[in-house]
Amino acid sequence: MRHIRAKRLFLCSLPLFLLAATLALAQGESRARDLGIPFDGTPGALNAITDVGGVEVGFTTLISGSGKLVVGQGPVRTGVTAILPRGKKSINDPVFAGWYSLNGNGEMTGTTWVEESGFLEGPVMITNTHSVGVVRDAVIKWRFEHGAADLSGYWWSLPVVAETWDGELNDINGFHVKPDDAFHALNTASSGPVSEGNVGGGTGMICNGFKGGTGTASRKLSAKEGGYTLGVLVQCNYGVQSQLRIAGIPVGRELPSGIPHAEDTGSIIVVVATDAPLLPNQLKRLARRVPLGLGRLGSYSGDGSGDIFIAFSTANSATWGPGGVKHVAMLPNDDMNSLFLATAQAVEEAVVNAMIAARDLKGINDFEVLAIPHAKLQQVLRKYSRLVGADNT
Amino acid sequence: MRHIRAKRLFLCSLPLFLLAATLALAQGESRARDLGIPFDGTPGALNAITDVGGVEVGFTTLISGSGKLVVGQGPVRTGVTAILPRGKKSINDPVFAGWYSLNGNGEMTGTTWVEESGFLEGPVMITNTHSVGVVRDAVIKWRFEHGAADLSGYWWSLPVVAETWDGELNDINGFHVKPDDAFHALNTASSGPVSEGNVGGGTGMICNGFKGGTGTASRKLSAKEGGYTLGVLVQCNYGVQSQLRIAGIPVGRELPSGIPHAEDTGSIIVVVATDAPLLPNQLKRLARRVPLGLGRLGSYSGDGSGDIFIAFSTANSATWGPGGVKHVAMLPNDDMNSLFLATAQAVEEAVVNAMIAARDLKGINDFEVLAIPHAKLQQVLRKYSRLVGADNT
Amino acid sequence: MRHIRAKRLFLCSLPLFLLAATLALAQGESRARDLGIPFDGTPGALNAITDVGGVEVGFTTLISGSGKLVVGQGPVRTGVTAILPRGKKSINDPVFAGWYSLNGNGEMTGTTWVEESGFLEGPVMITNTHSVGVVRDAVIKWRFEHGAADLSGYWWSLPVVAETWDGELNDINGFHVKPDDAFHALNTASSGPVSEGNVGGGTGMICNGFKGGTGTASRKLSAKEGGYTLGVLVQCNYGVQSQLRIAGIPVGRELPSGIPHAEDTGSIIVVVATDAPLLPNQLKRLARRVPLGLGRLGSYSGDGSGDIFIAFSTANSATWGPGGVKHVAMLPNDDMNSLFLATAQAVEEAVVNAMIAARDLKGINDFEVLAIPHAKLQQVLRKYSRLVGADNT
Amino acid sequence: MRHIRAKRLFLCSLPLFLLAATLALAQGESRARDLGIPFDGTPGALNAITDVGGVEVGFTTLISGSGKLVVGQGPVRTGVTAILPRGKKSINDPVFAGWYSLNGNGEMTGTTWVEESGFLEGPVMITNTHSVGVVRDAVIKWRFEHGAADLSGYWWSLPVVAETWDGELNDINGFHVKPDDAFHALNTASSGPVSEGNVGGGTGMICNGFKGGTGTASRKLSAKEGGYTLGVLVQCNYGVQSQLRIAGIPVGRELPSGIPHAEDTGSIIVVVATDAPLLPNQLKRLARRVPLGLGRLGSYSGDGSGDIFIAFSTANSATWGPGGVKHVAMLPNDDMNSLFLATAQAVEEAVVNAMIAARDLKGINDFEVLAIPHAKLQQVLRKYSRLVGADNT
Repeated sequence: MRHIRAKRLFLCSLPLFLLAATLALAQGESRARDLGIPFDGTPGALNAITDVGGVEVGFTTLISGSGKLVVGQGPVRTGVTAILPRGKKSINDPVFAGWYSLNGNGEMTGTTWVEESGFLEGPVMITNTHSVGVVRDAVIKWRFEHGAADLSGYWWSLPVVAETWDGELNDINGFHVKPDDAFHALNTASSGPVSEGNVGGGTGMICNGFKGGTGTASRKLSAKEGGYTLGVLVQCNYGVQSQLRIAGIPVGRELPSGIPHAEDTGSIIVVVATDAPLLPNQLKRLARRVPLGLGRLGSYSGDGSGDIFIAFSTANSATWGPGGVKHVAMLPNDDMNSLFLATAQAVEEAVVNAMIAARDLKGINDFEVLAIPHAKLQQVLRKYSRLVGADNT
Repeated sequence: MRHIRAKRLFLCSLPLFLLAATLALAQGESRARDLGIPFDGTPGALNAITDVGGVEVGFTTLISGSGKLVVGQGPVRTGVTAILPRGKKSINDPVFAGWYSLNGNGEMTGTTWVEESGFLEGPVMITNTHSVGVVRDAVIKWRFEHGAADLSGYWWSLPVVAETWDGELNDINGFHVKPDDAFHALNTASSGPVSEGNVGGGTGMICNGFKGGTGTASRKLSAKEGGYTLGVLVQCNYGVQSQLRIAGIPVGRELPSGIPHAEDTGSIIVVVATDAPLLPNQLKRLARRVPLGLGRLGSYSGDGSGDIFIAFSTANSATWGPGGVKHVAMLPNDDMNSLFLATAQAVEEAVVNAMIAARDLKGINDFEVLAIPHAKLQQVLRKYSRLVGADNT
Repeated sequence: MRHIRAKRLFLCSLPLFLLAATLALAQGESRARDLGIPFDGTPGALNAITDVGGVEVGFTTLISGSGKLVVGQGPVRTGVTAILPRGKKSINDPVFAGWYSLNGNGEMTGTTWVEESGFLEGPVMITNTHSVGVVRDAVIKWRFEHGAADLSGYWWSLPVVAETWDGELNDINGFHVKPDDAFHALNTASSGPVSEGNVGGGTGMICNGFKGGTGTASRKLSAKEGGYTLGVLVQCNYGVQSQLRIAGIPVGRELPSGIPHAEDTGSIIVVVATDAPLLPNQLKRLARRVPLGLGRLGSYSGDGSGDIFIAFSTANSATWGPGGVKHVAMLPNDDMNSLFLATAQAVEEAVVNAMIAARDLKGINDFEVLAIPHAKLQQVLRKYSRLVGADNT
Repeated sequence: MRHIRAKRLFLCSLPLFLLAATLALAQGESRARDLGIPFDGTPGALNAITDVGGVEVGFTTLISGSGKLVVGQGPVRTGVTAILPRGKKSINDPVFAGWYSLNGNGEMTGTTWVEESGFLEGPVMITNTHSVGVVRDAVIKWRFEHGAADLSGYWWSLPVVAETWDGELNDINGFHVKPDDAFHALNTASSGPVSEGNVGGGTGMICNGFKGGTGTASRKLSAKEGGYTLGVLVQCNYGVQSQLRIAGIPVGRELPSGIPHAEDTGSIIVVVATDAPLLPNQLKRLARRVPLGLGRLGSYSGDGSGDIFIAFSTANSATWGPGGVKHVAMLPNDDMNSLFLATAQAVEEAVVNAMIAARDLKGINDFEVLAIPHAKLQQVLRKYSRLVGADNT
């Protein structure tokens, strides 16, 4: 269910799409748990960020052209992802938020205001590195046209837009993302299942030597723990194959060679959503736990990596803006442990989901990135008794 | 009204005290406004941090010995200051807090937990640089003996203790501050007027070329602005005379030469208290405004300076600890401007109050630091039409 | 010497320009010192950021249309400012840098990488709030076209672009800044005198109740202090008239009423340049001193203000990139005091320079912002014996 | 080879020591690799922080008394650890350093100055939570007595002292650590093999449900990677058994029940040393990688945990202090990847080393914490084909 902008679809070369379709049939529409990969914790109904009530996600996926790179003409393998904390109401009802940069070789605009105010005042957008600007200004325009009657446009001028780099597959210096692509992702955002793999901003990503992209997962806490839901969405483009651990097993070394990146020059953007009533400083605590999830996967967060994370809470509606003292709910710090663990767990699973959902993709100069081979991965995990199913548990 | 620990009082050499008394008569018990120095904004009833309801302040002032330095024997010119956000209840009802370091050549223990949790879980103590440790452990002991029945002592083990250096007047390497001195400051803390000048941790301080020490001031917002109170207490030991501005006038250059420090090697600790309902991230915003007050005074925050600030709010009682979701009040960010301005104003006035209240003090090897000369200061300000009273307004 | 993009010049309505010319004659081309306003410290030859060798500054000033606001059509009162640390070589020879946000209600892209790497890898751009995106992506394109043969474009993808808001005078939601405007500012950047007032990104700014904009100043340290130069460029759009202090005097209250902003909703971007050999963490120390300069001017850094500062050093050339261990020079921390003081002094003067150089400007719906009245300002300062010249010193 | 302060040794009850000796025989003096636990990367000669040339480590271990808790009398199960970056020369030749707090429910004094200056000006000390103060002031005294002739004591007054909490085994509110204990750790510090387990500040620690304490590990980079050494020392007191992963396997769930902590209320202090020439901001990058190592072990960094890390470099000697511009070496950011990976690897191994070296310990009220059972652990890893040796590789 890729959200591909209709008006640009005809640009796609037919053979490429046929190839993609074939591969999809070969590996099936699967998620990590479907393959028997074990994860801890209890996911929400969709095992997606949209398990957090109100969160909507939209994508614009741009795939067109093939063969030789001609800057400005393609090939194009990129897109835009939009995460709206409260759906369309996100414009007028900001959420508490916090952020953290594990390795700042990347961009997330709008963070000085998140840090200062404690609020995220709109969507989180993710695209490629060289299209952050166009998406940022487009969000302002979109808000100006759809927002409440604040003609000055003053109060929403600092959009949060993050990126990872897709220049190995995509004509990134061709600047193919346009304002309409941002509008499309925003306007088509919805609750429900979330597409994974080669979609949205994640279209042209490479992760741990194989095809990366968009992934998601969630955790539902027990009633005793408060019954809160925490969801994660990642755009993953980081890592080297040799360090990849799945289910704790260093599978990277036993899988066939993927992209032989000698070093981790990629990036990962992580968005953490929860309905637990957390204050801004507490949400930063969640963002700081993302590396604990990445650590499980063997990441060392390379120098070239933009590993930037943002966490928000959909609780505490209508707490933004003037009009006198607001009353907000706060989960005690002492009760946050389950959320910390859920963050680490959901990050771990969302990355693997992104890799499992991703499909082989050929980009500029016919450079091709293969998806992680499912059957072979299962075989390695089975060898270490770490596959859930017939012979393992 | 100095709080001097009785059992050590007899150590003081008589001549020194007579001298101090004489000087006190000469300059009188005065505050900056009494001299006609103009300040903006409306102070609270006491123009002190204790205008914020519940805040209590206590001092232990140690002055003994004179003449040649014999490490371990004196002379002693030091002390301890205790600020209790909710008086004796501070132990069991932590306050929201935030902190900021303008120049970190100093110490404020306990700040990683303030930053992480958003809470200040006890008093703020201020002493000399080499006595931070003894005061820190003493606070733990005091809490253990006076606190609720948490025998483990677990939840209050990270006291906030700050310092400035008094080694020019005081035998700082003699480690004269003892646990009892911390207990005394805590046990005698009270609301009401706050002593200024050569008291508590501020006893041996030098500021902008003259005698420094403890100072305080407050601002009371109008009903339209919310009616909140904001108070400040400083322990000031920073600055060089040549840069000193009072009421915006570079008075330092026109006053007789004080201590000829070529560079700013001092420090200033600032504690900001308010009853406005601010979240932890908002309190950090107050702490970040302290430099705007110091800027008015001409400070450049020298390399050797430990300029560390903490802000707390006495609103939102009983929000700490486990037991389910808490409900807290939050002033909208948009309504914080008056508090920002009040912070800058109160910092400016508190420093001048410290200098005006301070008295000449002779310390090790008969090194003497003179108080800023009141009459001469008035004369300079009058020259620039910046003295409130008979001939200026 | 305004750098106005030629191809858009014809859009300007004639009467407006005539008015501007008339005003320029009335107040003359002046800087703060020309009026007798006293400042401390010794400026460089130009009293500008370009006193730091290698630094180049360029502007694109967009002024066109008048009368009623028609979103997308104007009136236009905006622009772009480019600061290149090493001129055109900035692309391939990054400088050490550090940054600080006093109040983050603003944007400065690229800061996570500045913080992480310690390097500023290109120019600093300043524009209006809603044009940060277009300028950011344009910088990437410009670098891609003019940079070294790194076709991947990888290593320079995170431009630093800051902003202040000009929506009171300018059709900010019309998105009038285009990529060519960024290119123009970059391509015409030069050393030498720097235009001030209504130029570049500062075109439509309001500051302390009067017309604001671009300002600059510098300090030259004595040989004994190392002989280093430190320069500052500000785009100032902050403050309320009632709090304005010039030369320490609260002049705002005695001047005729300007724009009656009840609260500080503006912003100020400050760029600090020096040739002193400072490491990244030391440059952050400079950025943290900017508030000390703003404090002298009475700022309280309002909630709506984006007060974000970046500092870089042109020393330590060729220290970026792979190729083995680099050897860099470092000024000892103990020797930084003169640079701290210079920062506070230059910030103070650059803001006043911006206000003095600015001219009356009429924008959308004929809303007009007047320049601070020079003669009246002199009169107030003279009253307080704070005017340098005939009757004061 | 425990460093136990002689004069207090006689306080130890005999039976306790006999028990410890018996256990030592049972499990042997072993490290994680000796048991066949697999780790990535190449350790240095000692697989210890002392593989970094110049680094010295000393311990004071305090074990005395048994049975019922009588505050002030015991039982005592605590100590002090000293890490000297350049051995005894650490006093006069500070090292570049950076720090990071993953979860700030702990203390590390002196960090504002590390952050500000970029230097660590002496040793790193680790003790129990309630003894940070006494150790801090003792370091000042020790320096004053052993340092160069700076009688003012000014320049070294901000010691770095960290802690974890041992109140389950140790009479922590009895304040049994004395200044002499800090002196002993400093004076007996040496290069060479480093004791692990129940030694120094790590004496009374609990980690992941079993006995924790002090652990160390190192990595030696290849010549192609620069040939640098990176070493880690941990004092580990964090975690819950259910989450423990060793070699990627969730072994915690399959081992016999240890201490049934429901939540992670512990702490971990990590010291990272390297001889790679890194600037302060680069050392902070290393500190930020520590969570990636903890993630491998399943940590979620609980609310009650003080997870604070400091990294220093022994390169760039004689760069501290006044006296004109210093010349320092800097590894390019692009060349740091091997160090990032080494940090994650060494942290992972050092924690396991601490647990493997630790021995059963009985403390207050005869509460006993058992060491992780070696044979059972091997059995679990063998089941998952993750044991190096006879049947696994």
